[in-house]
Amino acid sequence: MRRQILNSPDDVVSEALEGLALAHPSLIVYRPDPGIVTRAVPARNKVGLVSGGGSGHEPLHAGFVGTGMLDVAVPGAVFASPTALQVHEGTVAADSGRGVVQIVKNYTGDVLNFQIAGELAGDDAVRTETVLVADDLATDTDEDGPGRRGTAAVLAIEKICGASAEAGADLGTVAELGRRVARNARTLSLALSAGTHPGATTPAFSLGQDEVELGVGIHGERGTGRIPFADADTLTARLVEPLVTELGLAKGSSVIAIVNGLGGTYPLELHVAARAVHRGLTGRGVTVARSLVGGYVTSLDMHGLSVTLLPADPDLLPWWDAPVRTPALTW
Amino acid sequence: MRRQILNSPDDVVSEALEGLALAHPSLIVYRPDPGIVTRAVPARNKVGLVSGGGSGHEPLHAGFVGTGMLDVAVPGAVFASPTALQVHEGTVAADSGRGVVQIVKNYTGDVLNFQIAGELAGDDAVRTETVLVADDLATDTDEDGPGRRGTAAVLAIEKICGASAEAGADLGTVAELGRRVARNARTLSLALSAGTHPGATTPAFSLGQDEVELGVGIHGERGTGRIPFADADTLTARLVEPLVTELGLAKGSSVIAIVNGLGGTYPLELHVAARAVHRGLTGRGVTVARSLVGGYVTSLDMHGLSVTLLPADPDLLPWWDAPVRTPALTW
Repeated sequence: MRRQILNSPDDVVSEALEGLALAHPSLIVYRPDPGIVTRAVPARNKVGLVSGGGSGHEPLHAGFVGTGMLDVAVPGAVFASPTALQVHEGTVAADSGRGVVQIVKNYTGDVLNFQIAGELAGDDAVRTETVLVADDLATDTDEDGPGRRGTAAVLAIEKICGASAEAGADLGTVAELGRRVARNARTLSLALSAGTHPGATTPAFSLGQDEVELGVGIHGERGTGRIPFADADTLTARLVEPLVTELGLAKGSSVIAIVNGLGGTYPLELHVAARAVHRGLTGRGVTVARSLVGGYVTSLDMHGLSVTLLPADPDLLPWWDAPVRTPALTW
Repeated sequence: MRRQILNSPDDVVSEALEGLALAHPSLIVYRPDPGIVTRAVPARNKVGLVSGGGSGHEPLHAGFVGTGMLDVAVPGAVFASPTALQVHEGTVAADSGRGVVQIVKNYTGDVLNFQIAGELAGDDAVRTETVLVADDLATDTDEDGPGRRGTAAVLAIEKICGASAEAGADLGTVAELGRRVARNARTLSLALSAGTHPGATTPAFSLGQDEVELGVGIHGERGTGRIPFADADTLTARLVEPLVTELGLAKGSSVIAIVNGLGGTYPLELHVAARAVHRGLTGRGVTVARSLVGGYVTSLDMHGLSVTLLPADPDLLPWWDAPVRTPALTW
C-alpha cells in the first residue's frame, strides 16, 4: 500500500503551491484566490504567457513561472482542469498590454476552459492567442476524436515562447513560434508502474512483473499496448524508434531531446535512460543538439519516463538557450 | 516487487554518469578511468574542491560540479566508498596550484580513503585540507564510536565553500569556512519506505503501514526509532523540533533550510512538507532566510525526506547567494 506525505487530499495542491512559493519568494507569488501563480515581479510591456491544467504534473506549470518562461500558471485540482474563471483571472494577470498567449495541453476540459477564458478576456479588451499542445505520439490516429494528448512538449513550448516574448516579440509572432514547435515536437512515454492519486492507496492501474505500459498518458491513461519488461537500452529504444520514424529524422538531422521522469523514477535510472536515448539517437546519425534530463512533467509518483524530440531548427536554439529563471528551470 | 530502469547493476553508476555528462557537456566531463567527474573547463588559480563518496545519492556529488561549487566529484559504487587511488586522482585533478579542500561525509571508508588520498597528494606536493561533514542528528551520541553520519548538510558546505573558493579565498580560509558550516548544520530524516538497491527486488528494510522510520540514514541505516504514521504537518514537526532544540534556535534567529527528498518523494509531497517546515519554523519565531527544496541528497528511491537547518550567519548568506552553475544547482 502506497502511503503519502500530505495532510488532506483536498489541500494537497494549495499547500504544495504555498510551499513552492515560500521556497522561491523572489521568483513567484501564489494567489490562493483565484488560484493562480504569478511572477513575483510582473513583467512590463511584453506578450504575456499563461499555461495551466490539472495538477499532479509538478513542477509543471507553476515551476516554470519566471523570467524567460511563463507569466502565470493556473493549476487545477489533481488531474482536473482549472475553471474558466480561474484561467480568465490568470489571463488578465498575464497581460501587460501586448496580449497573452495561452499554452494549452490538448485535453477536453482544458481546451474548453481556456477557450471560454479567451472569450472573457476579449470582453476585457485583452487580446489572446492559443497554442495547442498535442505531442503524444501514442494517441496519434487518423480517426476522429480528441486528437493527440498534450504532454512534455509543453515544456519546450513554454521555454521557447517565453524567450521570444521576453525578447519583445509581438503576440502573433510568439504564438506562431509556439504553434510551429507544437507541430514539430513529439513525445512517447512508458511506465513500469502507475501513480497513486493523493488519498488513494493503490496505483491507477497495475502491471504484471513482465509488463511495461507503452504510450502511457500523464494521467495514467492506457497506452498503445503492453510490452515485455527489458533493460534500459531496450526500453528506451521502444520510445526513440517510433519518434525518429514519425519525425522523419534522417542521418545528419539534429534534435532537442527531453528525457523526462514521470515522478517515481530516481536519478540513477533516469540518467541511465538518458544515456541510452542519447546513444540511440547518435547511433542513428541524429545529433543531440541540446538535451534536458529530469522530472519536469510528472504524473504523481508514476515510475516511468517520456522522451520528447523536437527538430533543432537553427533559429530555435537561441530561444532554447536564452536565460531562464524559474523555480524548476534556470540557466 | 520493485523493478528498475537499468541495464546491468554493475554498470548503473558509470552509465548514469555518462548520461549526466552527455546532458551537460558545457559543464562537466566524466572520465571513466579513473572514475571522476571534472568541470568541462577546469578552473585556474583557485582553491580546488573535491568531494565524493558512495553513489546512490544523486545528484550528489557529480551534479554539483561546476562554477561556484565543486571542481571534481569522485563517485564510488552504490553505497560504497571510492578507492583511495580514485580520490587521489580527483584531488590532483582539482588542484590548480592553490591546494585542495576535500569535503568528506563521515563514513569510515570515505574518511579512510580521503585520508590516504590526502597523504598521496602531499607526496605530489598538492596541499590539502579536509572538511568532515557529520550533520545527522539521529546519530548524535556521547558514546565513543564513528560519530554522526554525514548527510544533506554536505550540499550547504559544497555551496558555501565553492563560492568562497571561486571568489579567491585561500586554502585555510575555505576549509575553515567549511568546518564552521559543518559544526553548525544539523539534519534529521524520516522514511515511509526504504530504497531498493540496483539489481535487488525488495527494499533495504520494510515498515508496517502505521510506521515511519525516524532518523533514517541515507544508506537505509536504522534511525532512532519508529514513530506512528501521521499527516505531513505532524511528521515534519518530528524533524523540525529536535533540530531547533539542538541548534538552540531562539525566537528571532534565522536559518538556511534544506528540505530534501530522498529519491521516491514526488514533488507535491515534497512541497507540502516544505510548507510545513516553513510554517513550523516561523511558528517558533525562526526566520527562514533562505530555503532549498528538492531531491538533492537521495538514497536511491527511498520514500522520505530530510530537513537540514543551518543558522544563517549574515556573512554566510552572500556565499549561499553567489552564482552557481552545475547540473543540479544553478542560480
